[in-house]
Amino acid sequence: MDFWFDFSSPYAYLASEQLDALAAAHGRLVRWRPYLLGVVYRQLQSRPVTELPLKGEYFHHDVARSARFLGLPFRPPQPFPVATQQAARAYYLLEAKDEALARRYAHGVFRGYFVDGRNIAEETTVCAIAAEAGADADMLRAALAGDMPRSLLREACKAALQAGVFGSPYVIIDGEPFWGADRLPQIARWLESGGF
Amino acid sequence: MDFWFDFSSPYAYLASEQLDALAAAHGRLVRWRPYLLGVVYRQLQSRPVTELPLKGEYFHHDVARSARFLGLPFRPPQPFPVATQQAARAYYLLEAKDEALARRYAHGVFRGYFVDGRNIAEETTVCAIAAEAGADADMLRAALAGDMPRSLLREACKAALQAGVFGSPYVIIDGEPFWGADRLPQIARWLESGGF
Repeated sequence: MDFWFDFSSPYAYLASEQLDALAAAHGRLVRWRPYLLGVVYRQLQSRPVTELPLKGEYFHHDVARSARFLGLPFRPPQPFPVATQQAARAYYLLEAKDEALARRYAHGVFRGYFVDGRNIAEETTVCAIAAEAGADADMLRAALAGDMPRSLLREACKAALQAGVFGSPYVIIDGEPFWGADRLPQIARWLESGGF
Repeated sequence: MDFWFDFSSPYAYLASEQLDALAAAHGRLVRWRPYLLGVVYRQLQSRPVTELPLKGEYFHHDVARSARFLGLPFRPPQPFPVATQQAARAYYLLEAKDEALARRYAHGVFRGYFVDGRNIAEETTVCAIAAEAGADADMLRAALAGDMPRSLLREACKAALQAGVFGSPYVIIDGEPFWGADRLPQIARWLESGGF
């Protein structure tokens, strides 16, 4: 099953705290696939919810309430949203070496942004979070300067568009798409019963 | 608590099957408030989800799956969506006389459209459903020709805009807004604990 997300999506953060355990309980593994929501929005000519009248205000209120509902720590980050190119590129670099490390790093990015108010748009923050997850920050910084991470993220965005992904979080289980953290109960049922 | 909805909204149909029981379990009553989603969309310059690329397709898939998830009967209606002026005007006329009758009628409209494929845009269908709920169809038909139902619905749409309602279903509990049938679990928790 694929977990598509943008690191600056608060609903993706909420889902990220539950998805692996949910999958593991049913003997499944999750492939984390950060991408850039902005690329999809440009393609679909849609706008971020935060820019829409009424919905934008509701969004902020609902995110905080949903975090409380799920019992997860959450502090509205400033600035919001932020560019997540560096965070996503670093993810793919780390994943190519060590998936468990990449997973720890990804949790670190989400929690760093949505709990501790760290600015994950900055390369220094991204590298510091990677180091805390056990990566070699100097090597990561050097690798980020190359072409590979750009190309890996570009491929991921292309794959997202091809898979019809249009939001974050967006989970695909054997071809079945689930959009939004509020679909976690349906995902649980789907894994339990192999579809319903 | 207020339950704002458009009769042609399938997620509102799903919510309508659960909301009264949920409220009653916590000693609360629900005021049903049909309005026209189109009026709000015009005001906000937004478009129905069914017209959006990818999201439109996902919407149809998700509605059917959500109905199965909740164990509710559902058949994709054709045509969809339909104009719901007559259905909503009849609701307010019936409600002014007898709220229990109006409630039976409203369930009849939702189920007629989303389960039995009846065209609720037509006045004859609306009157037939009202008769099945126990109303005098001839009196209703005569009343629908007058100014009162128009004015009642216009007031409801104005009140929806004033309350910041932008979707369907949209539930407001003591000022706290919940958008979407997928917020029923949060509504349940809110009623249980008086906020969280």
